[in-house]
Amino acid sequence: MKIYGNPMSTCTRKVLMTIAEKGGSAELVTVDLGKQEQKSAEHVARHPFGVVPVLDDDGFVIYESRAIIRYLDHRLEGQDLTPSDTRERARMDQWMQIEQSYLTPNLMQILYNTLFAKMFGRPVDKDALAKGKAGTEKALDVLEKHLESGTKYLAGDTFSLAEITWMPYLEYLFPAEHGDLINSRARTKAWWETISSRPTWKHVTGK
Amino acid sequence: MKIYGNPMSTCTRKVLMTIAEKGGSAELVTVDLGKQEQKSAEHVARHPFGVVPVLDDDGFVIYESRAIIRYLDHRLEGQDLTPSDTRERARMDQWMQIEQSYLTPNLMQILYNTLFAKMFGRPVDKDALAKGKAGTEKALDVLEKHLESGTKYLAGDTFSLAEITWMPYLEYLFPAEHGDLINSRARTKAWWETISSRPTWKHVTGK
Repeated sequence: MKIYGNPMSTCTRKVLMTIAEKGGSAELVTVDLGKQEQKSAEHVARHPFGVVPVLDDDGFVIYESRAIIRYLDHRLEGQDLTPSDTRERARMDQWMQIEQSYLTPNLMQILYNTLFAKMFGRPVDKDALAKGKAGTEKALDVLEKHLESGTKYLAGDTFSLAEITWMPYLEYLFPAEHGDLINSRARTKAWWETISSRPTWKHVTGK
Repeated sequence: MKIYGNPMSTCTRKVLMTIAEKGGSAELVTVDLGKQEQKSAEHVARHPFGVVPVLDDDGFVIYESRAIIRYLDHRLEGQDLTPSDTRERARMDQWMQIEQSYLTPNLMQILYNTLFAKMFGRPVDKDALAKGKAGTEKALDVLEKHLESGTKYLAGDTFSLAEITWMPYLEYLFPAEHGDLINSRARTKAWWETISSRPTWKHVTGK
């Protein structure tokens, strides 16, 4: 099993975290994003939209991180990362969608206009930053309220794929100097501390 | 079972189509989008991000169309809309992601700057229209190539949730006078004719 990706990429980290949680293993073939290798003919043959990651499971090639992690959860042995209860599974799917529709488009605007602007010497778009911050706060407010209802994890009592989709984005808020968005919300902070202290996450993020 | 939504909304149509395919029934409670009822306190209590649809299944409230249709597929009797084979299921998930990540953001730019601009007397953003059209063509090129491999449906031999996520967006290309994006691609055209002639789809779109 090979993963074409990059250890710093949020989407690659979802795949690496899923494999770590399942106790599986795979070869990470690094795609150098600084050199735009994801746009090379070789990589585009694997992923026609030219992004990472891609999974090659003995010739079965699949892309899009959220599809890959669902596949790996079925494919690999180890603990189930999808609840068996129909309503808990629906709650997991809903939180995966909230990540994709409301959290990530906004949170990425924070990263582009803080961390990445600094790293790559790019101009800061203050309006986009303010809008991204407001949208991220909204998503985190909804999360805080959900956690206040007493649920330990997003889908219910167990860690699931929903956490795995949220974690890579939240992680980068800290080096982007916006960790207060998490730490200022008591339940979100406690949940984040619980999940980010998992040995699997420390392994994935190289801590 | 109640659906809070609007019969013209793409996301509501995914839910209505899933229910129709399963042979189920639900009460559609219309949220008037023209009057911005989706932003009312009453609706926001159901969906904190203020959009449609929301499903209320005897007190179990869930939002986000792609999560709702997965739930309904498990919850309702009738034919399975998710393949049981692990690889076919992964393919379904991948095509649902392609819809969400690459097709829809682009195709909506076509609709905003043709159909909706005309309906609501809004200015046309020609750059956004051109960019949206190029992105839609790219997604449809990838689809065409996939269908050329001989697969009848997106996930394999059977109609699945993947089709249900694509259909509402593709449908609106025709009144937006961009139906040629579908009709100029032989396999895509044949696939579209097969799926859009399903009695369930005619029922959902009121044809």
